[in-house]
Amino acid sequence: MRSPRGVILLAALVAVGRPVAGPPELSAQVAGEQELSGVEIVQEAGLGKMWTFDRLPLDYLEERYDFRPDPEWFDHVRLASLRTGGCSASFVSPSGLVMTNHHCARGCITAVSADTHDYMVEGYYAGSRGAEAHCPNMYLDQLLEIEDVTERIDAAAPAGISGEEETRLKGEAMDRLEEECSEESGLRCQVVSLYHGGIYSLYKYRRYDDVRLVFAPEGQAAFFGGDPDNFTYPRHDLDVTFLRAYENDEPLRPDHYFTWSEAGAAEGEPVFVTGNPGSTGRLLTVSQLEYLRDASYPLRIQQYHERVAVMGELIDEDPSREPDYRNMIFGLENAIKAVSGYLRGLVDPTLMEEKHEWEATLRAAVREDRRLRERYGGAWQEIARINEKLTRLHEELVYSSFAHFQTLSRARDIVRLASELAKPEGERSMSERTIEAAKRRIASDREIDREYERMLLELRLTAAREALGPDHVLVRAALAGDDPEAAAARIIGDTRVGDPEWRQALLEGGVAAVNATDDPAVVLAGTVDAWVRGLEEKVTELRAEEGANEERVAEATFAVYGTMLPPDATFTLRLSDGLVARYPLNGTFAPYKTTIYGLFDRAESFDHKDPWKVAPKWTAAKDELDMSTPLNFVSTADIIGGNSGSPVINRDAEIVGLVFDGNMEMLPNRFLYRDEVARCVSVHSMAIIEALRTVYGAGALADELQGR
Amino acid sequence: MRSPRGVILLAALVAVGRPVAGPPELSAQVAGEQELSGVEIVQEAGLGKMWTFDRLPLDYLEERYDFRPDPEWFDHVRLASLRTGGCSASFVSPSGLVMTNHHCARGCITAVSADTHDYMVEGYYAGSRGAEAHCPNMYLDQLLEIEDVTERIDAAAPAGISGEEETRLKGEAMDRLEEECSEESGLRCQVVSLYHGGIYSLYKYRRYDDVRLVFAPEGQAAFFGGDPDNFTYPRHDLDVTFLRAYENDEPLRPDHYFTWSEAGAAEGEPVFVTGNPGSTGRLLTVSQLEYLRDASYPLRIQQYHERVAVMGELIDEDPSREPDYRNMIFGLENAIKAVSGYLRGLVDPTLMEEKHEWEATLRAAVREDRRLRERYGGAWQEIARINEKLTRLHEELVYSSFAHFQTLSRARDIVRLASELAKPEGERSMSERTIEAAKRRIASDREIDREYERMLLELRLTAAREALGPDHVLVRAALAGDDPEAAAARIIGDTRVGDPEWRQALLEGGVAAVNATDDPAVVLAGTVDAWVRGLEEKVTELRAEEGANEERVAEATFAVYGTMLPPDATFTLRLSDGLVARYPLNGTFAPYKTTIYGLFDRAESFDHKDPWKVAPKWTAAKDELDMSTPLNFVSTADIIGGNSGSPVINRDAEIVGLVFDGNMEMLPNRFLYRDEVARCVSVHSMAIIEALRTVYGAGALADELQGR
Repeated sequence: MRSPRGVILLAALVAVGRPVAGPPELSAQVAGEQELSGVEIVQEAGLGKMWTFDRLPLDYLEERYDFRPDPEWFDHVRLASLRTGGCSASFVSPSGLVMTNHHCARGCITAVSADTHDYMVEGYYAGSRGAEAHCPNMYLDQLLEIEDVTERIDAAAPAGISGEEETRLKGEAMDRLEEECSEESGLRCQVVSLYHGGIYSLYKYRRYDDVRLVFAPEGQAAFFGGDPDNFTYPRHDLDVTFLRAYENDEPLRPDHYFTWSEAGAAEGEPVFVTGNPGSTGRLLTVSQLEYLRDASYPLRIQQYHERVAVMGELIDEDPSREPDYRNMIFGLENAIKAVSGYLRGLVDPTLMEEKHEWEATLRAAVREDRRLRERYGGAWQEIARINEKLTRLHEELVYSSFAHFQTLSRARDIVRLASELAKPEGERSMSERTIEAAKRRIASDREIDREYERMLLELRLTAAREALGPDHVLVRAALAGDDPEAAAARIIGDTRVGDPEWRQALLEGGVAAVNATDDPAVVLAGTVDAWVRGLEEKVTELRAEEGANEERVAEATFAVYGTMLPPDATFTLRLSDGLVARYPLNGTFAPYKTTIYGLFDRAESFDHKDPWKVAPKWTAAKDELDMSTPLNFVSTADIIGGNSGSPVINRDAEIVGLVFDGNMEMLPNRFLYRDEVARCVSVHSMAIIEALRTVYGAGALADELQGR
Repeated sequence: MRSPRGVILLAALVAVGRPVAGPPELSAQVAGEQELSGVEIVQEAGLGKMWTFDRLPLDYLEERYDFRPDPEWFDHVRLASLRTGGCSASFVSPSGLVMTNHHCARGCITAVSADTHDYMVEGYYAGSRGAEAHCPNMYLDQLLEIEDVTERIDAAAPAGISGEEETRLKGEAMDRLEEECSEESGLRCQVVSLYHGGIYSLYKYRRYDDVRLVFAPEGQAAFFGGDPDNFTYPRHDLDVTFLRAYENDEPLRPDHYFTWSEAGAAEGEPVFVTGNPGSTGRLLTVSQLEYLRDASYPLRIQQYHERVAVMGELIDEDPSREPDYRNMIFGLENAIKAVSGYLRGLVDPTLMEEKHEWEATLRAAVREDRRLRERYGGAWQEIARINEKLTRLHEELVYSSFAHFQTLSRARDIVRLASELAKPEGERSMSERTIEAAKRRIASDREIDREYERMLLELRLTAAREALGPDHVLVRAALAGDDPEAAAARIIGDTRVGDPEWRQALLEGGVAAVNATDDPAVVLAGTVDAWVRGLEEKVTELRAEEGANEERVAEATFAVYGTMLPPDATFTLRLSDGLVARYPLNGTFAPYKTTIYGLFDRAESFDHKDPWKVAPKWTAAKDELDMSTPLNFVSTADIIGGNSGSPVINRDAEIVGLVFDGNMEMLPNRFLYRDEVARCVSVHSMAIIEALRTVYGAGALADELQGR
């Protein structure tokens, strides 16, 4: 294994090839009137604590926790950490045992289920190495190296070009670098744009793709409380799954893995989370936040509600269809909860005021320095101008996207593909990959839920007519003189695009056939296509310009504050720190942990009604269980989606828990990190051991974790 | 026992001697554009559900719950219900057993404790009739009759007199009526002003004053979670105490008592609460609410905080004094929580908007009818004018009250009493009773906490100087050229009013001695007394005028809505109705009940730190307890302070619970009743039985309750 130590910069706060105005002392003075300590700056800035492993905040950690880990500690933690599709994970035994969330391993658990066994319902325990079932399409990435490549990426785009050109050239440079790196090293290489393009880093991963299922609890135990309890705390979920990485059909022997803490974390104890937070918007400018607040989120929430409403009506009409829609409704309700939580942050005047202040302070600092002013002074206004345009275009873009309509999307595929295929290969605007994907969709025999699409289209057309006006090109083309109900019935009712053979035949007939058909969905797609393409191009251009200006804002931020503050989340490995801590909730306190007593209490409190049913194995083991065992606990570690499955470790790098959620109060942290009431929710290490030994008869697995 | 049936009017919605514009149909039309049902009117009006037993909403109950109790049901419920000092209670066995809250019986539990036993800590179980300990100063009042006396009271005050005169004359008429009634019937008689003087009712009580202690749990079990969990839910308190009424040294055999439900109430089941809600302000006008919002509550909360801050500082200086202040701090923190909850309602724009709408609708209805307009049209403006004045006078009144200062209050007693006693008896402005009370206070040897008063006075003088300005008569007299710190040290430090003998001597010296003394507290009290008296008289006059106009508003309300809506709470017996129901809390649901599992969970979750300690007897009984037993539960019954100790009964008038609190979300219900998230919190009947049998070895008491 290659040592990454020469590449990873362990000294924090080093500005790497960026114009930096001064040492941290200066930053401290800019951040406020009086001099602030590093901890205070981190707290004030609200940019959170998702530290990259090449810029670790050693002084901050020492000041905050009296804890200054050595390079070996960080290397060990990084190499024991893993990334998997959309989630985080970690090595937890010398024999390649891997811990992640149950909800991160659903694909595998479902895949290894058979007609006779639904392991999502029953739970799974292999019991012996030989019985560990292979997870198809599952992999684990281990971060070996980080290399700063900002200069190389920046060099690819000369000054004075358009934003769109800059995006394209840098994108090409990133692709090149990744390819070179992969060829040279045999590793998975990814160029990561940090601080919205302020820094580019090359991340090199070793991939393990022989992953097998070792243990999973029942869905009821992993997701007790279901959708209502999701994003909330106090909580009672054993959201854990154990996998094992194999190499050459033998269990992997990783050089680095986390050992198990005997007692877990006490209240007030510092803990660390190592994982891959997906996306935050803490460095967004005020105008970008306003776009999300005023345009993007409200319409998203509205459309979630529309879909839930349609499915609810379909279930009312025919209750036997409830199982078809159930998971989708749960998913949508969860999305509503999440996006409403983000929006709650943005409509909170305090949050926006703090954002305004932060931006005003930064812009004032830029204005005061002639060099900075010339380079970056105009960036915020540019972004504001772009976001005003994006806000104006937003409804048109959303209503013309045909999202959630298989019929209209297939019709659009046919229209666009016919037109593209008619051009010579060199003149096509769609890439080969895009063309192939569209062909596959046209050929797919996936069934279309016509009744659902008809009802949803009626709602959408009603909303579009209201939002865009009756004379808008899209509205006129869709309604064609009808009211939304009749138009939806006509378009979805009469179209033949639901039939894959008909689609293939139409496409084979080329542009002439497409132009000649009177199929209402194809006619609609064709009528608006030129306009939609124009709109899409305009938005792409604006987004590229926005990106170039975001990069200027990022550079200005470095110039003023250095790189002591962490970048927004990028689904790459970060270390976060926090304390195990209760918090004020609804007039009293939410305790720092829950116990197994609480699981049974909540189930009884709802008379065991769904989704508050205790899994049967737990009920059976009731008398043997130590009810006082901690089940879940909360900390102020800074996490977001993508951190699911992250290990929570103590100072000795021992596992004390497993991140699986944040509380409701954490959702606004997407834009401004605050820790008065926002909490990271984790499974407690002791609950895992107690459940394995007492509920699941998986003592051997518990022994492996505890090194016995 | 006299039957009250002839007096109590069981037909609801009957206007009694008031000018009523029309039948309920009219009311329904006024309340909204479309016709509303009785249930909808009750819900819309936001006046809640605290029904008096002489105007029971039979149609509403039938429509809402398909339940129309007969007169016997209501008589039975009324006669099994009891009132005690500040609380409610009920008969729960044929042998005079009485159930109330632990926190309502603290005085008795403390009184029967001895040097060797602190029953507040240990809990108490008499075990046999002979051992039941007498509660000094405790009584139970049973409501035998209600008689409408509105005409008689109104007749006492001729038209055209001042508000102050009207208040005085009506007060005298009420006193006369009460005296007459008591003499005639031998009962406790009280004239109750309902709807802020819209209706006067004569309430006749039978008093039981031989009350003995049967059972009380440990304070830890009754008040688990202490101050933090107070006003919140989910909750885990066994806040119950059993007493027994005796007559002629024998257990009372009441004709009416509640029997015990076997299983308690299920989710969704209708329940009824019979008890004595203390005070609500739902009929207050918008300007009265604004006075509370802008003047009264903010200053009250500020002064609570000042007192907590001073006690905190004193404990910091000398931690051994913590026990002296602990209960006071808890009490103040609770008051802060409560008043902040009320204030939260008043600063909520939705609540105020609804209040505005309600008032605008009512005033419009009054304006449209010439007769109503002439009689009542000006009342709201009058009240607004008065409340503007009260708002302006509020700070002066509060700062001049010397509340929380024993020193200054005793000094004022001396100044006033000396001056009064100098007048001939017929010309005194203080009543004989007031004079006697002042004499007792002057003679009292209650110790004064000087350090506390000095520190508090420094804070008060600082705040008063800020609020009233440095040239205000009170501020000038108190500071006398010093800063607040020096002034407080001088006034509290140098005064001799802490010495009862010195006080007596000064009073005996009469006006001359009082005028001659240079005692700084007496000098301050004397200097400002004329001004303070003037201020108090002005406020008394304004309050009387306000009362007269409130009565006009009440009469106007009847004229428009009839008496179908319940009056504000008056600490007299009411019946309230509701459903046992979960509610949305923090992104998920609060369950309708908690269980004993939850008690142990919450204790473990805080590592058994105070105030989340399980009482030792419960820990000892852990393995024998049925953990799934419901412990507390919530319902939408309409309650407020004074309802503590109220029984919760089902349709069969069986006990299913015992009211002991409301959740935080209920606090704004003081002004506008809403039931989306507001809940009444009760001890579950099954928890009482399980605890008596399994924890306390009080099977005989459980048998008595369950009629075994």
